[in-house]
Formats: sequence, structure tokens, C-alpha cells
Amino acid sequence: MPNPTAAMIVIGDEILSGRTRDSNMHHLAGQLTEAGINLCEARMIGDESKTIIDAVRTMSVAYDHVFTSGGIGPTHDDITADCIAAAFGASIDVREDARAILAAHYAKSGTELNDARLRMARIPEGATLIDNPVSAAPGFKLKNVYVLAGVPSVFTAMVASVLPTLTGGRPLISRTLRIDRGEGDIAGPLRVLADAFPALSIGSYPFQKDGKYGAHIVIRGTEETEIETAMAQLGEVFP
Amino acid sequence: MPNPTAAMIVIGDEILSGRTRDSNMHHLAGQLTEAGINLCEARMIGDESKTIIDAVRTMSVAYDHVFTSGGIGPTHDDITADCIAAAFGASIDVREDARAILAAHYAKSGTELNDARLRMARIPEGATLIDNPVSAAPGFKLKNVYVLAGVPSVFTAMVASVLPTLTGGRPLISRTLRIDRGEGDIAGPLRVLADAFPALSIGSYPFQKDGKYGAHIVIRGTEETEIETAMAQLGEVFP
Repeated sequence: MPNPTAAMIVIGDEILSGRTRDSNMHHLAGQLTEAGINLCEARMIGDESKTIIDAVRTMSVAYDHVFTSGGIGPTHDDITADCIAAAFGASIDVREDARAILAAHYAKSGTELNDARLRMARIPEGATLIDNPVSAAPGFKLKNVYVLAGVPSVFTAMVASVLPTLTGGRPLISRTLRIDRGEGDIAGPLRVLADAFPALSIGSYPFQKDGKYGAHIVIRGTEETEIETAMAQLGEVFP
Repeated sequence: MPNPTAAMIVIGDEILSGRTRDSNMHHLAGQLTEAGINLCEARMIGDESKTIIDAVRTMSVAYDHVFTSGGIGPTHDDITADCIAAAFGASIDVREDARAILAAHYAKSGTELNDARLRMARIPEGATLIDNPVSAAPGFKLKNVYVLAGVPSVFTAMVASVLPTLTGGRPLISRTLRIDRGEGDIAGPLRVLADAFPALSIGSYPFQKDGKYGAHIVIRGTEETEIETAMAQLGEVFP
């Protein structure tokens, strides 16, 4: 059976303007690969309702799992929850279970649960809450879409709560060989290898260090013995 | 007149597997913002022909400029040039001008211009070459799509060659105010401000430092006086 597929939607004007460098996609990518789930696509889009709704609809049909990050805070530009509801035609309002979590959290610090903070308890009907051990305000899952926070520490914590609930495929194994030759010398033999092992993904990632060219050849697959065989053949060509 | 729009397509399995953390998108985002061009969307996709062709077609229609990074080296997994040609129904082969650039470059180091390296001279018919001052193999422009290398030093150099040729809009100006209060306290007044200045983009980016909450409020727009007026009003509410 092929591995499950996933996609990510990174939401936020600050990413597209270059103000903030996203780190959540890279984190999720590594976690999914370890879990045997193939991240097939990531889209970075702005805080704009129609764009968010269209991306959610398209990707939730195309992939087994969709993860979003960003736009679930208390301010006016946090519109992700409303967009997810709209994408699936679900109603959305302050939900009692989410309000209770926030009320308990803010009571501890004597902070008022005002209208703005209550926005973080707006959860689409039918969604399941996702635990936020860092700052309480929950994420949620609706259909196959996991709606997570944009702040990296919270995003990471939410991914950790969600991943064990997903059924992965066979974890992708990868082996890397560093070859201190230009990619132009490596390319020919590499194509022969790729043709001989169609089930493996064989990538070449060039680098330049101290004026010398080289490449990391990465062989990925799910069958360890097949990968080792290919690595051995590569090692014979480039000792 | 509204600013020109742009999109980016980051191509490469290594990004989606989490092996490599992309830096090109963040670099391009900052450069475009400075030039007054709005980056509206970025997609990260794998080394898969149909996915690349579909993304190129969709985005070249939707945006004024499209930038791709990755997949133009000499190895079998470098399929971007062929996909761009396919997306626009252009023919593609080794082109004499590109071959001459590579031949001159490799002659200097006495390196053989073999079949693999010649792949980097495969340029779609009708495309304009983009200078690569780092490692010679050129990028190219076809229609409104700029096809750039994935190696960050080369990507950066190619962006530097391309940007001066683009006509930007009015540069986006941004001002930031750090407010040492929770976003939940800031959100109410911020919404009032956002409603009062519909032409400005007002974003709130929360942080947590030494156990205290705060947020950077970023006001963006093209009219400096309008931004300063909004900043002054924000400063009155949160002195």
C-alpha cells in the first residue's frame, strides 16, 4: 500500500513579505517523513479569505491529510478558523469546551477573558480540539484538515499531539554518499543507477566548498536491503 | 495603479522530505517587497513532471511574474527546463548560446563538457538566458516565468541579475511597534485602527520572551504619511 499523502498550508502575510522566515514547514516535513507520510506540497499564502478557502478545499480533496499553520490568534487578521468553517460549509461560534480551556488558563494569571481572547474559542461545528500545552488556545481538526498555530513553539507542540494519532506508512529510509566530484561527472552513472532501481528515489544535491565541487547523493526508499544494494553499486563507481 | 504581483515555485523532493531547509523563498520575498512587487503565493513541490507543469501553467496565468528555483542541474532528477517547455508547448534542445557559455567555463578548468553537463544547455525555444556569475550554467526566462537555480548562492546571484529588469510598484513601507502586552489586550484597539485605515495592512506577530507576552505590530502601506498617522494613533493607545 502506498504511504499516506499530506500537504501543508502556511498562512500569513509576514511570510510572503519576507519579514518572517517560516520554520514550521521544515519541521513538519521532517516529522512526516519519519512517520512514513509523504508531504507532497506546501503552499504559503496571505491572510486573505478567498485564497485560504480555495487552498483548503483543493488540498483537502487532493491529499489524505492537510496541515495549516498561522492565523488562529485573537487579532483581526486571524481569520483561519472562519475560513476553514467556510471551506466546509460548517457554522462557527465560540464553543463551550474551548471557552472552558481558555477560562481556566487565564484565571490562573488573573487575565481577563475579553472579546478578543474569546475569538480563540471560535471553533467550527464538528471539529475536534487539538491540545496546546504551551499557551492553551487550542487548534482543531475538521475533516482531514489540522489547524495549528503559527508560533513555532506552539506549532511544534501541536504537531507532537497530532502525529501519534495518524497512521503512517512504512517510514522512508535514506542513505547519503558524499562524492567529491562535480555533478557533471556524477550525473551519467547516477542515471544508470536510477534506471536500475525504479522503486528508489535518487537525488543529487550539489555543494561547493573551499572552491571544490561535490554532491551529496541521497537514496530514499522503504526497502532497506534494496537501498543498501544501490548504495554499494554507487560506492563501486565512486570509491 | 496596484503593485505587480508575483509567485514562487520551489522545486525539489529534498525540501518536502525535510532534508533541506529552503532559504530561497525568504530571500526572494524580501527582495520583491523592497522592489514594490507583491509576492502573493509560494508553492513547494516535488520533482514530478505533471505537478511542475500544472503549477507553472496555473501561476503564470494568475500572477504578473513567476519565479522557480531548483531542478536545472546536470542530473537525471533535474527536469525543470523540460517541464517549463512542456507547460508552454515550446520545443527544447541544447541551445548554441548556452552551450558556448558552458564550453568557455569548463575550458578554463580543463573539465570535459560531457553529455550530463550539456543538459544544462537545454533551453526552451524563445527563452532569454539569465546570467549565472557563480557557476556559469544559465537560468532562463520564458513568457513571465523566471527559471533560477536551487543552490542558494546561485539563486541569489540570479535574482540580482533579474530584479533590475522588472518594473516594480511603489515600495511597501513598514513600521513596527513592539507592545509588551498580550495580544488579547491589543486585539480590540487594533481592530479599530485597522477599520480606520483600510488602505493599510496591519499585522500582529506575538512573541513570548522571559515568560512575558508581547507582540510586534507591523503597519504596512505605500503612503508614508498615512502610516505615520496610524503609528501615532497606535502609540497613543499603547504608550
